[in-house]
Amino acid sequence: MSFRASVLTLYPQMFPGHLEQSLSGRALERGDWSLEAVQIRDFAHDRHSSVDDTPAGGGAGMVLKADVLAKAIDHVSPPGDNRPRLLLSPRGKPLTQAKVRSLAEGEGVVLVCGRFEGVDQRAIEGRALEEVSIGDYILSGGEPAALVLLDAVIRLLPGVMGNDQSGLSESFEDGLLEYPHYTRPQIWEDRAIPEVLLSGNHKKIDAWRRAESEKLTAERRPDLVSGKKTQL
Amino acid sequence: MSFRASVLTLYPQMFPGHLEQSLSGRALERGDWSLEAVQIRDFAHDRHSSVDDTPAGGGAGMVLKADVLAKAIDHVSPPGDNRPRLLLSPRGKPLTQAKVRSLAEGEGVVLVCGRFEGVDQRAIEGRALEEVSIGDYILSGGEPAALVLLDAVIRLLPGVMGNDQSGLSESFEDGLLEYPHYTRPQIWEDRAIPEVLLSGNHKKIDAWRRAESEKLTAERRPDLVSGKKTQL
Repeated sequence: MSFRASVLTLYPQMFPGHLEQSLSGRALERGDWSLEAVQIRDFAHDRHSSVDDTPAGGGAGMVLKADVLAKAIDHVSPPGDNRPRLLLSPRGKPLTQAKVRSLAEGEGVVLVCGRFEGVDQRAIEGRALEEVSIGDYILSGGEPAALVLLDAVIRLLPGVMGNDQSGLSESFEDGLLEYPHYTRPQIWEDRAIPEVLLSGNHKKIDAWRRAESEKLTAERRPDLVSGKKTQL
Repeated sequence: MSFRASVLTLYPQMFPGHLEQSLSGRALERGDWSLEAVQIRDFAHDRHSSVDDTPAGGGAGMVLKADVLAKAIDHVSPPGDNRPRLLLSPRGKPLTQAKVRSLAEGEGVVLVCGRFEGVDQRAIEGRALEEVSIGDYILSGGEPAALVLLDAVIRLLPGVMGNDQSGLSESFEDGLLEYPHYTRPQIWEDRAIPEVLLSGNHKKIDAWRRAESEKLTAERRPDLVSGKKTQL
């Protein structure tokens, strides 16, 4: 059973986008995962194919209609489909590597890409959409966020990463940022590779790397050190 | 002077990707911003066009070479180019809307997309790369992150958003997540629009929205409430 991604969007032509290249592209060709990008507008029912309307209570912007979105969701994810349904939104819970890992272990995902001012809250509740945010910034819509989420998930699917990469020690996997890396040449623009890395003493090298990781994490991400983000 | 983005990558064909569509695509056509995606491999100097080598001190994965990357950076960003140089990396400082806004006010940006295990630390230091992370998860490379960062920046460039969208009250702009939205029909699947929104009493509507925003933020993002993330 390969991982099945369904994306609901007003811009289906944005998919698969960069996922057609590199690791995820080869995995798509092999059938390790599949993607359908579905146009929400196809489920509009008036003669103008309206998908949005003005917000109840007034205010700027337009709101994605509950009835249209729900029809689209029901089409790609009928009863019996156990895939989680995520709405990409800056209001969502922050995406973490733990969440990415749990999605990669499942059978797939339904991703709803918001646009406009927002999505009618009743569609979110009536179709049990889980709001997820990829970060604390505002995008033009949910599409770039959906592509990022899929990229993160796909690289963890069985067989996608070669042996070269699967054993990498990675930021977040142990709650610390990665230590600095160096490679040849030994001296570059008067900058030398730290001596310990050339010592051949693996115990010392591991200790140096651990200390560098801890220093960097404390400097840049005190929130990780204080354990405030336990979901990592 | 239009906003000038230069991207250094091993996958230039991933650009402009989804940025060719919608708001950012129309802005690109109008010349509100420009993009050059430069192949790092073109700056390799051996006959195999090697861009990476094994990590000093041992370990899995490969490291992007300082000499090759620095040459590529010097080519797109010679002395006198004042654009900030960002390296997309999970080790970086988290991207915030405040950072996006400050980038959008500048003349452009140079984005370096990492791949492999990492980038030689001496290139980061020698070329003053600022490491930025779009979130606490691991991607296949810096490219999807660069596309997200550009999407966030481009929508804030002068003239890119129409009047329809420019006045939106947005998550993060006031440190709170957005209140729920509703639009017609008034009743959908037995779910009604909250009565206050139909009252026409704008003072009450504003108070309800503020209270909903505060409730949602407290539930989902206690880190925002406690003021731990002052950069928002």
